[in-house]
Amino acid sequence: MNNEVDLEKYQIRTDLAIDYIEEEKKLSGVNYETNTINDITITNVKLDSNNALGKKKGKYITLEFEDVTDSENASKVADALTKILKDLLKIDDQSFGIVIGLGNDKSTPDSLGPLVVNEIIVTNHLYLLSKLSSNYKRVAAISPGVMGETGIETSDIIESIVNKVKPTYLIVIDSLASKSIERLNKTIQITDTGIHPGSGIGNKRKEISEETIGIPVIAIGVPTVVDASVIVSDTINFIYKNYAFNKEYMKTPKSKLTFNNVNYLKHKIEENKEEKEFLLGVLGTLNDDELQKLIYEVLNPVGYNLMVTPKEIDFVIKKLSNIIAQSINNSIHDIDKIN
Amino acid sequence: MNNEVDLEKYQIRTDLAIDYIEEEKKLSGVNYETNTINDITITNVKLDSNNALGKKKGKYITLEFEDVTDSENASKVADALTKILKDLLKIDDQSFGIVIGLGNDKSTPDSLGPLVVNEIIVTNHLYLLSKLSSNYKRVAAISPGVMGETGIETSDIIESIVNKVKPTYLIVIDSLASKSIERLNKTIQITDTGIHPGSGIGNKRKEISEETIGIPVIAIGVPTVVDASVIVSDTINFIYKNYAFNKEYMKTPKSKLTFNNVNYLKHKIEENKEEKEFLLGVLGTLNDDELQKLIYEVLNPVGYNLMVTPKEIDFVIKKLSNIIAQSINNSIHDIDKIN
Amino acid sequence: MNNEVDLEKYQIRTDLAIDYIEEEKKLSGVNYETNTINDITITNVKLDSNNALGKKKGKYITLEFEDVTDSENASKVADALTKILKDLLKIDDQSFGIVIGLGNDKSTPDSLGPLVVNEIIVTNHLYLLSKLSSNYKRVAAISPGVMGETGIETSDIIESIVNKVKPTYLIVIDSLASKSIERLNKTIQITDTGIHPGSGIGNKRKEISEETIGIPVIAIGVPTVVDASVIVSDTINFIYKNYAFNKEYMKTPKSKLTFNNVNYLKHKIEENKEEKEFLLGVLGTLNDDELQKLIYEVLNPVGYNLMVTPKEIDFVIKKLSNIIAQSINNSIHDIDKIN
Amino acid sequence: MNNEVDLEKYQIRTDLAIDYIEEEKKLSGVNYETNTINDITITNVKLDSNNALGKKKGKYITLEFEDVTDSENASKVADALTKILKDLLKIDDQSFGIVIGLGNDKSTPDSLGPLVVNEIIVTNHLYLLSKLSSNYKRVAAISPGVMGETGIETSDIIESIVNKVKPTYLIVIDSLASKSIERLNKTIQITDTGIHPGSGIGNKRKEISEETIGIPVIAIGVPTVVDASVIVSDTINFIYKNYAFNKEYMKTPKSKLTFNNVNYLKHKIEENKEEKEFLLGVLGTLNDDELQKLIYEVLNPVGYNLMVTPKEIDFVIKKLSNIIAQSINNSIHDIDKIN
Repeated sequence: MNNEVDLEKYQIRTDLAIDYIEEEKKLSGVNYETNTINDITITNVKLDSNNALGKKKGKYITLEFEDVTDSENASKVADALTKILKDLLKIDDQSFGIVIGLGNDKSTPDSLGPLVVNEIIVTNHLYLLSKLSSNYKRVAAISPGVMGETGIETSDIIESIVNKVKPTYLIVIDSLASKSIERLNKTIQITDTGIHPGSGIGNKRKEISEETIGIPVIAIGVPTVVDASVIVSDTINFIYKNYAFNKEYMKTPKSKLTFNNVNYLKHKIEENKEEKEFLLGVLGTLNDDELQKLIYEVLNPVGYNLMVTPKEIDFVIKKLSNIIAQSINNSIHDIDKIN
Repeated sequence: MNNEVDLEKYQIRTDLAIDYIEEEKKLSGVNYETNTINDITITNVKLDSNNALGKKKGKYITLEFEDVTDSENASKVADALTKILKDLLKIDDQSFGIVIGLGNDKSTPDSLGPLVVNEIIVTNHLYLLSKLSSNYKRVAAISPGVMGETGIETSDIIESIVNKVKPTYLIVIDSLASKSIERLNKTIQITDTGIHPGSGIGNKRKEISEETIGIPVIAIGVPTVVDASVIVSDTINFIYKNYAFNKEYMKTPKSKLTFNNVNYLKHKIEENKEEKEFLLGVLGTLNDDELQKLIYEVLNPVGYNLMVTPKEIDFVIKKLSNIIAQSINNSIHDIDKIN
Repeated sequence: MNNEVDLEKYQIRTDLAIDYIEEEKKLSGVNYETNTINDITITNVKLDSNNALGKKKGKYITLEFEDVTDSENASKVADALTKILKDLLKIDDQSFGIVIGLGNDKSTPDSLGPLVVNEIIVTNHLYLLSKLSSNYKRVAAISPGVMGETGIETSDIIESIVNKVKPTYLIVIDSLASKSIERLNKTIQITDTGIHPGSGIGNKRKEISEETIGIPVIAIGVPTVVDASVIVSDTINFIYKNYAFNKEYMKTPKSKLTFNNVNYLKHKIEENKEEKEFLLGVLGTLNDDELQKLIYEVLNPVGYNLMVTPKEIDFVIKKLSNIIAQSINNSIHDIDKIN
Repeated sequence: MNNEVDLEKYQIRTDLAIDYIEEEKKLSGVNYETNTINDITITNVKLDSNNALGKKKGKYITLEFEDVTDSENASKVADALTKILKDLLKIDDQSFGIVIGLGNDKSTPDSLGPLVVNEIIVTNHLYLLSKLSSNYKRVAAISPGVMGETGIETSDIIESIVNKVKPTYLIVIDSLASKSIERLNKTIQITDTGIHPGSGIGNKRKEISEETIGIPVIAIGVPTVVDASVIVSDTINFIYKNYAFNKEYMKTPKSKLTFNNVNYLKHKIEENKEEKEFLLGVLGTLNDDELQKLIYEVLNPVGYNLMVTPKEIDFVIKKLSNIIAQSINNSIHDIDKIN
């Protein structure tokens, strides 16, 4: 049967470097370290050359955290992000940045970039009038819209403005797609490698990076949706894990009473190949990539254009955009606190 | 293995009568008829008594249609809905209705009700001042919010306003959850049985119906989300259907070239039990209900609170609310056309 | 000429007690005190009986402050408001409040109440499920809309919900009209006398007070618009003041150079009756009330329905609603800080 | 006294050609004609050379109409505007336009341009993929934001995009300031002379015209605010007109009863210089320009930054943007009807 399905035809979309890290760690030329501070896990990956997995050389920093709707947690994330941005940006008095919010402000999960831009403390017009206080550095900000709305390639808009206005660096914010439901709205990726083909929720196809436009491009991304195919493949795997967990742990009457409260994913489960095939048939013999490609192939001709988001997405996106805007403002300008 | 999973514990949520109709048709006491006019399929189900499937006696009318973002199609749907509402409401000079928009205006897929209310031509305050032209009938409209935002049981708000203001009928609009991805934003359900426990996207737990408040309650609902479990179970079934379709039709080199354009769901496929079990293992032996309950059980302890919506949901919800508001306005007031 | 204009026919609308205070101070039975703390002026007026100016007996507290778009200033105002609300509300474990946001969320200057309600930490539904942590008290919140949108008298909605849900107190937030441009968005009025006929930007005609609904009603109001007639009468007065100021101070070539930077309103100017009449004709002989009534009479038949707001109203309203919501949350719940 | 006030220092802002037309008509080299069709007054002014009043040579077309919240009236205005745009644009298969929405989408009266852009049927990206049906022409659309938000000169953004994307014409939509309250939201100005210094509500200081960017620039503007100084000077004039009207017509007891219903502005009133000075003093001796400049001078040092808008501005702006977007879509694309 496998012969009839060409699993190489489809590319499941993810934009998150960390989705590849497990595999990348095994490659030579990959330096990484992981620290957990204040309940936030920070992973630094440094690729010295464009690598075997098709990723560009450069720094990939990933913040992983829990619920940002908790205000205490939110300010921890903002502090960590501010520190990372300060290190990457190395702002001085000659610095002039444009903050670019990619995405569609009319589609909630894709509105992260425009929402961040709304809260950036913009100063370039005051600088031009020599009215800028020394605590503030030179910053502009723009949301170029998405091609489906403007009819113009987004990278063309950005490039032409960069050529005209001549900033010294860009910060680009975008909503990302993830291959993993667990990371949804709980990860921020920062990279100095810019924006690449296929990145983001929409179709932003041209690269925006130091190589293409000649100035540093820091990209900040948050996975806010997963493709419908992801939840299907995740769940198929969970069906087996849940079964195996129950078989191993749910042997006593007492344990059955606590059943519903147990997150079986947090338990180590030995995989039994035969059992998995018994439960899931041929599906159980596919690896993650094969399974996702199969699902994509199955859903594609039916014409579904679905996304999976948390039910509280409207609220979470606002909180995340607050955190990112505040961090950008604090890392550029010389201010103690901006509400 | 089946013994360890109690499939009766979970109730997959759907609010759409038509999801049950196939089963209901087989029951005695169910009268139904289906007509297709102007590309719109209208199904009338009449239950003479509360039936075996737990649904209340009354009329259930379902409009099924294609893309409402096409303006020509949208006006066909509005015409059909206007006619249905006129028949149900039987407005005269003594009629006084309140249009109630259930749902959360801050969560896109749940905002249908409040968006409709925004466009209702409200006249009650003019009636009270004797300033109402004879073309208009007496109407009020309110969006009571959701309990998570107000802290008050929504049905309590509605009941207390009804008792004070004394309308002669209610029209209640709500976003629904569906068991079927195909029906998402492509179905409007109208019923004279009111709103029931578990209906709607949120938790609106008390019944609002002629029995509880003493006046006719027409409920208009549109499925705007499906639970994440639905897309998983649908896809697992599709995996088999796609496989079976390919096996049957994809035998010639030429047919393989057209592969990607074929919606295999539109083809009749004979189910082969052994093949399905080979492909899907034990999963392949479960019926739809068993499969969805299994998936719900598997996702629930992991704490996912996910919804599946079309990527263009923001735009579609606006169009649907236009159509419903226009239909309500036209069915109540004596006007030829309202933009 | 005066005979032909009946200045008693029109009542220029203001909702701000402090607009009357100068006059009220002269009345017996009025106790007041003014303190300035942290750049915020707090005026406490206590009327022991319904007074000659038609105001109800009770407490009127007015906060006057500068620009709330400055975050430091905003948090000073929030602290002062929190303290005032704590004193008035005297929350204990039996307290159960409903926060009511009056006004129209679709008209920016009238959207203060609904915006505040959006940010209230609502707990009543958790209390009913016995899930309320001891730090939180029982609160619900609702935005009943405006009569032009709902067709229902707003006070009827509030009364019927109060009767059903049985809170022990209400907090009502509303946008107000002011007679003074200087107070626009720079004053918060808190009173325990509730909401009264003619208050607010819209037409909310029935009283909501302890007398009418039997529980304490704290009203919080901010002047966000002035009637167009106000800016006309203010400016006519300013024309004279500016003239008199220039005549007195602008005598040297040097002073003329600084002309544009001088806010003449901050200088004491002796009024010269003859000069004023020379400059403004009969207009110059009218007192403030007569002038406003004349202007209202002149604008009314022309059919103008205009309002005057600051150009940055959208931004200021958001800041003010943050401050008020945060103060309400802090004065009710036992929390140190809510962002 | 006049000597102390330099009336030439201040330029009251208006962007509406028709505000000057009365004066322009008297100039040689001005061709104009006025037609009233379907309750809409259309004035065509053609300047053959840059004229004495500082306006550029070109066509100025003004639509004057009543309430667009009436849907029948709205569609008459859309029909007239469509016809005008078709004549000016002369679209053919080589045409490629960019629709540019100037203004701030976060400030209601300034949001006209961005709201129009949201509704433009954009096709350029489909054209680039050769997917464009022959009924549609090549169009892109963008809202570049305002300098206060982006920090970038708006004309720089537009110029750089034009240079990159190479359209054959621009349509620029903007909210305007008016010198006349009567024209507020009741006038659309179309011109082929582009956008000029000082135009629009914000500070868009550089010209965008065929001369500066080399392609035709059609500007569509609607006056949505008047400066506070305008309502003051209008009202001062009205005070006299109202007085004179009352003196002339209100002589019988019966006429006094109907007083409030009479719009005195619609009656011809002979001006009596002495009487006006008696009533208004020196104010009564100033002409319109002198009066507005005086008022501006008086309000400026007090730091007021106020605007005057109709109370229903949020609703009216939506209707106007619908009309303009529909007219642009219909004049470019070959479609019968777009909702």
